[in-house]
Amino acid sequence: MSRSAEVICVGTELLLGEVLNSNAQFLGQELARLGIAHFHQTVVGDNPTRIKRAIALACQRSQLLIFTGGLGPTPDDLTTETLADFFQAPLVNHPEILEDIARKFAQRNRVPSPSNDKQALLPEGAQILPNPIGSAPGIIWHPRPELTIFTFPGVPKEFHRMWQETAVPYLQSTGWVTAQIYSRVLRFWGIPESTLADQVAPLLALTNPTVAPYASKGQARLRISTRATSQETAHQVIAPIEQQIRQICGLHCFGGDDETLESVVGKLLQQRGETLAVAESCTGGGLGQRITGVPGSSTYFLGGVISYANATKRDLLKVNAADLEQYGAVSAIVAEQMAAGVRSQLHSTWGISITGIAGPEGGTDLKPVGLVYIGLSGPPGTQSFEYQISPLRGRDWVRQMSTSHALDRLRRQLLADQP
Amino acid sequence: MSRSAEVICVGTELLLGEVLNSNAQFLGQELARLGIAHFHQTVVGDNPTRIKRAIALACQRSQLLIFTGGLGPTPDDLTTETLADFFQAPLVNHPEILEDIARKFAQRNRVPSPSNDKQALLPEGAQILPNPIGSAPGIIWHPRPELTIFTFPGVPKEFHRMWQETAVPYLQSTGWVTAQIYSRVLRFWGIPESTLADQVAPLLALTNPTVAPYASKGQARLRISTRATSQETAHQVIAPIEQQIRQICGLHCFGGDDETLESVVGKLLQQRGETLAVAESCTGGGLGQRITGVPGSSTYFLGGVISYANATKRDLLKVNAADLEQYGAVSAIVAEQMAAGVRSQLHSTWGISITGIAGPEGGTDLKPVGLVYIGLSGPPGTQSFEYQISPLRGRDWVRQMSTSHALDRLRRQLLADQP
Repeated sequence: MSRSAEVICVGTELLLGEVLNSNAQFLGQELARLGIAHFHQTVVGDNPTRIKRAIALACQRSQLLIFTGGLGPTPDDLTTETLADFFQAPLVNHPEILEDIARKFAQRNRVPSPSNDKQALLPEGAQILPNPIGSAPGIIWHPRPELTIFTFPGVPKEFHRMWQETAVPYLQSTGWVTAQIYSRVLRFWGIPESTLADQVAPLLALTNPTVAPYASKGQARLRISTRATSQETAHQVIAPIEQQIRQICGLHCFGGDDETLESVVGKLLQQRGETLAVAESCTGGGLGQRITGVPGSSTYFLGGVISYANATKRDLLKVNAADLEQYGAVSAIVAEQMAAGVRSQLHSTWGISITGIAGPEGGTDLKPVGLVYIGLSGPPGTQSFEYQISPLRGRDWVRQMSTSHALDRLRRQLLADQP
Repeated sequence: MSRSAEVICVGTELLLGEVLNSNAQFLGQELARLGIAHFHQTVVGDNPTRIKRAIALACQRSQLLIFTGGLGPTPDDLTTETLADFFQAPLVNHPEILEDIARKFAQRNRVPSPSNDKQALLPEGAQILPNPIGSAPGIIWHPRPELTIFTFPGVPKEFHRMWQETAVPYLQSTGWVTAQIYSRVLRFWGIPESTLADQVAPLLALTNPTVAPYASKGQARLRISTRATSQETAHQVIAPIEQQIRQICGLHCFGGDDETLESVVGKLLQQRGETLAVAESCTGGGLGQRITGVPGSSTYFLGGVISYANATKRDLLKVNAADLEQYGAVSAIVAEQMAAGVRSQLHSTWGISITGIAGPEGGTDLKPVGLVYIGLSGPPGTQSFEYQISPLRGRDWVRQMSTSHALDRLRRQLLADQP
């Protein structure tokens, strides 16, 4: 089948860079997942002449045109009327659309204005593509044989719901989707993307499933993908390869799909009925924030101390004043005392600490920006780990990497220590 | 002048949605700032036929074509050779490009591979558009009279440097930029965008400067913009309007341009030589993380306690056990005791606390998800503030809004209390 889709995003705000065009990326991912070919994306402003030229070009080369934006009530929202005009279809009033808008407005104690009236006008022959959360519905329209047009509002939340709930089932039921791409993402920590790629090199040459490495925020990932007619068939192709990768990579692989270091650590602690406390210096609370970002973390996370000043390290964590003086706040011994101190003060099973130099100032030759110590204290004892994180990517990067290293150290300890 | 620019982003990874096209947004903002008209953006895959069709269309309607992507060393990087082919220009070897690549690679202990050779081939007549940080240079080329072509690599960091350092000065020196848009952004907390827009309604009708409201992450903003030939001229137009807005909005306006609630609070504390400590429950460290995200925050931030569990509130913050029992952890009295407790334990001038129900679980009829108390303790005494944050946008939203409210309460206190 040589049919293809094409994306046309309408809005002067996109051309002015006021809005990041995440809708185009979403459609790219969705069309790829559904196995629908897609060779062009166009952004055009709120100008009828230029919108018409974009339509003329697109329907010469594509059989499914997907419009986002320009469905609102204001005079510069022109997508629907310009489409009708281009295909010389009269606009037909759909009172049920206005009733639906009035109902939604009433929930927020508002009433529609006369400008909403035009949102009820659709080209003759077009079906309503319902918008469950916003005011502007879209259309599904065949203005010519072998040509399908979808329109969506530009608001991503509304567009995503309408896409998933109506457009995808429509495409599946009309022969556009025969098989789709299923993917499983494996996530790694403690191994660079290039080393990972070397270790699984033979698998990267596979054609079904495909295995592709990528990295984001210091985290290496492998995406295992296959084209299949059902989730079950896909699983049969993907699972053996996932197993091989996990055998090769061992503890470096911390999880899959939506899992995070903090959710994996949380699950392990919950299984063991153990608790955790944190002591943070340079990360200032960022580790606690990540841990408590997981709903339900109150069952294993007790809290911690943000010991930014040395006095706080001494007073609240009982770090030895002489060691602070002699070795400095960024040292293995202070990291260990922070971890042991917070564990003892909060009566938790485990204590993790972070102390380091986040920059941009504060580095020296002996202790450069990016030097970080992680302390880990628990039933087997207390230890520390030294990291030199690249300072080139800035303060936030050093802090983000530090919290990931801390979570990863605890994860490895919990897995090594399994009953 | 009716000349216009056009953006063509090349890369199958964009069509597949693997990469978010932030380059298109960046160019939109930059062209708007420079006052260069721009009516079309196109995304096309790594396919010579489709790239050529995009060139043919673009040079019929635009006089400046800006390409991003497709300059790398691999066989699917086709931008340069396809441009040369389209305009029937021979490719010319520039040995200085390969020397530059070799020098950059040597710094990372690597050597160029034969595939890099093609990066030294540019169309005859094209100037090198130097890449100060990456391997791929771009071009500035006039294949025809009245037509200018820029090419840039897709890597945003490289593209931005090349754009600012070479392309913008080139556009300024060749008559593309006569005047440009200067903007000042004012930032607000504690006032919804719609109320703000009502209060400054007469100013929104101005034509020079223009005043436009927008909002992001709960923060209302006003952008004051003018077209001017220099920063000084722009300032003369913008400053009086900024002053009017600040008079109308008072303390709701917390800063401008790159300022944040945490940077403004930090500056105030630094000026007063005062210190701060935090006590966090539902935010789990997020307030401390924001405060310590400001470089130099160690001069006023002492640290704090993440009192996620009730035992931690009692043990480390000296919250009264009977009050915890009677009023619950999410209550005005516990918020006040947390703030006073952390201030007293860390010997800081000010203590702020946050206790609330972040959700998605844990809400009741009396204490629904999104109920948050902020405690503030300092020389004038201790008080608390109750907020009901909308739970519809999720746990992260409730936590993010809570830390902003806490910072804003301290900011207002510091400003009310000025010497």
